[in-house]
Amino acid sequence: MAIDFSIRKANSRARTGRLLTPHAEIATPVFMPVGTVASVKGVPQDTLEELGAQVILGNTYHLYLRPGVETVRRMGGLHGFMSWRRAILTDSGGFQVFSLNELRKVSEAGVTFRSHLDGSSHFFSPESAMEAQIGLGADIIMAFDECTEYPADQVRMRESMEMTARWAARSKKYFEEHKQEVPWKNGPQPSAFSPQQNQIPRSARNDNDGASRDDSAAELRSAGQPRAAVPTLSEAAAPTCSEQTQSLFGIVQGGMDRVLRKESAERTIEIGFPGYAIGGLSVGEPRELTREIVESTLEHLPKDKPRYLMGVGTPEEIVEYANLGIDMMDCVLPTRAARHGLLFTSEGKVSIKQARYAQDQGPLDPNCGCRVCQRYSRAYLRHLYASNEVLAQVLNTIHNLSFYLDTMQRVRHSISLGEEYRFLPGAGFDRDLEL
Amino acid sequence: MAIDFSIRKANSRARTGRLLTPHAEIATPVFMPVGTVASVKGVPQDTLEELGAQVILGNTYHLYLRPGVETVRRMGGLHGFMSWRRAILTDSGGFQVFSLNELRKVSEAGVTFRSHLDGSSHFFSPESAMEAQIGLGADIIMAFDECTEYPADQVRMRESMEMTARWAARSKKYFEEHKQEVPWKNGPQPSAFSPQQNQIPRSARNDNDGASRDDSAAELRSAGQPRAAVPTLSEAAAPTCSEQTQSLFGIVQGGMDRVLRKESAERTIEIGFPGYAIGGLSVGEPRELTREIVESTLEHLPKDKPRYLMGVGTPEEIVEYANLGIDMMDCVLPTRAARHGLLFTSEGKVSIKQARYAQDQGPLDPNCGCRVCQRYSRAYLRHLYASNEVLAQVLNTIHNLSFYLDTMQRVRHSISLGEEYRFLPGAGFDRDLEL
Repeated sequence: MAIDFSIRKANSRARTGRLLTPHAEIATPVFMPVGTVASVKGVPQDTLEELGAQVILGNTYHLYLRPGVETVRRMGGLHGFMSWRRAILTDSGGFQVFSLNELRKVSEAGVTFRSHLDGSSHFFSPESAMEAQIGLGADIIMAFDECTEYPADQVRMRESMEMTARWAARSKKYFEEHKQEVPWKNGPQPSAFSPQQNQIPRSARNDNDGASRDDSAAELRSAGQPRAAVPTLSEAAAPTCSEQTQSLFGIVQGGMDRVLRKESAERTIEIGFPGYAIGGLSVGEPRELTREIVESTLEHLPKDKPRYLMGVGTPEEIVEYANLGIDMMDCVLPTRAARHGLLFTSEGKVSIKQARYAQDQGPLDPNCGCRVCQRYSRAYLRHLYASNEVLAQVLNTIHNLSFYLDTMQRVRHSISLGEEYRFLPGAGFDRDLEL
Repeated sequence: MAIDFSIRKANSRARTGRLLTPHAEIATPVFMPVGTVASVKGVPQDTLEELGAQVILGNTYHLYLRPGVETVRRMGGLHGFMSWRRAILTDSGGFQVFSLNELRKVSEAGVTFRSHLDGSSHFFSPESAMEAQIGLGADIIMAFDECTEYPADQVRMRESMEMTARWAARSKKYFEEHKQEVPWKNGPQPSAFSPQQNQIPRSARNDNDGASRDDSAAELRSAGQPRAAVPTLSEAAAPTCSEQTQSLFGIVQGGMDRVLRKESAERTIEIGFPGYAIGGLSVGEPRELTREIVESTLEHLPKDKPRYLMGVGTPEEIVEYANLGIDMMDCVLPTRAARHGLLFTSEGKVSIKQARYAQDQGPLDPNCGCRVCQRYSRAYLRHLYASNEVLAQVLNTIHNLSFYLDTMQRVRHSISLGEEYRFLPGAGFDRDLEL
């Protein structure tokens, strides 16, 4: 196996575990910040490390268009290209093709679409999406699927689900035949140039769930000490899995129909993947429906494999779904909301642009230990946002990611103690966050 | 004295010294990054500390308009507002009033101008500019001057110089009568909220000139350890000067006329200031002329006082003027150029947007130890810029500031050894940097 998943502690439905990938060990459940075009917008990689990001997500659609798969492949894949030593997951490109392209043309073969950048015409098939993702070299890659729109009628949902199943089989076939072509086949080679030896792989920040492999060197490393004696590539990036290839996850679709979801799960499991994702949710349906589909779909997924809920969600949702047994989640919400001045705190949402904060000398979140809350006042953050300063985006994003990552750390800790993590009453996050 | 300046080593014209201010000790000659509206665009304050920024500049004009002097004053001044424990210098607002306002109206009383933000009408006089700067609370503030445009005829240059001299006297009078109103009068109080105790004041990074007070705690502090046991405010920010007030510097004007510059210097010295600036240069005149005026003006300035050349310059210029005996300089060039993808390296200028870097796996500057050059490839930086990613601005700015600050550190080191620092042949910086 190119990944290894072990559950350390399970309570009713929730579980906490360890997912070993070629580049990093990941404590689950995990939230994955989105780094669309090889950058989590506005945040340097060393800051992401300090925040405790264990795995980030790249978007194949965006990377395929810019800088192009071949460029990334030549740099040793995304790890080398963006200098990120921990784990990476790429989506298949399917979701962006469907959400960004009104002129797409879908056939059994694949999808013809136009670039949102220059209008040029492109084609993604299960095979070409695999080829792109192998070139990008993420630790975990995703089968090419069709994300069914919402609402959709029964016929449409079934046809879409069935095509996703056929595409999953083709994705797996291509992947198995070409997985040796990953840019870091002879062991992870995150970079072609030596200074990156300084980076720390495989560290999860102060994970208090008692099961974490804590890399204390990461805690000691100061960004002001770039040449500090930390483990070099050859010492520290020892393989975490016996087989040095990527892992391909399957995706369950089926719209908002529980029966179709069950059938999709069964067909995907029959093809056989080392992990399963639930796709096609959080696309506009009511939150109760999302939860219902997640809950029912989970019943049909193997307990010993990682389960990834795609594109979710609010702080309350990521806690809720982790408690239902989801192991992995990703969402643009913390980063996108930050760019709109919407910040998540232990006391609820803060719209930092409001004039009421203009002379507020307190920290953004008195219960947060992130470098933003430790140093700056709400008044200063409000000023940066109101003045359209780039630092507003940088600091806001750092805080929101810290809030999400700390929340998941607390969830893991609670599960390890046999408890269920809940936000303080009145935190008042909800789904009404259209940005 | 609210500042104390001592020269440690002088060779022919160049000198290296120490400037003590209420908030920090500054090794000179020093380059001051520009933080227009209380932010060096795109760079968090802890990163500025790591880069070795000893003193940053704030623009009174911009801060007066947004967030307003009163807001900053209530937060303990700029130090508290932006959480910056090292030194700050503010300009008088005069330069922006003249450069950003075509509709300004100048009289003996002062200048009426319109906000570039909303067109509202405002008035700056020597007195109101002092009032604003006292409220902003920088360590060093500047007399209100008229920056003579270039080119200007003899009559205009003289009249302008003479008004600057009269305004200097009014600036000093107001300052002396009101300097006790500085927001941190009872000792530096950089912040109203306690988490900022974590910040390190007064550290100049690895200064190899043998005279630096190196604060090793700063080197040990990791941003991942915000609660580390580092000196608290009361322990570390002990007064560096006996008198806890700001210092007002005078400004020499006189256009491009050496005789007028001499007269301006004499009249400004007669009023009496603890430091002198040369203003009105680098406003479009040929570089040879700038140097000629700097050189001749320096002859008329007291050797035992700090000399500040305003708004200069390219990497070659800051070295050149430090070698002529200038102690302080500021310029938007490193930060502004970074936003345009123009980067300064030991091998010369790099326009990172160029396609030739698309697959360049090497570091931006192989001789640079900054966190950007230590971690990222030219290919990645080029991709970020081409993709309009905010991280491009962040990383580019960090590198350019590192290059400027490291250059000045090398200049100080050379002076302390009795040598004259020069760039490697072929670095090829020049003034042709219109952005």
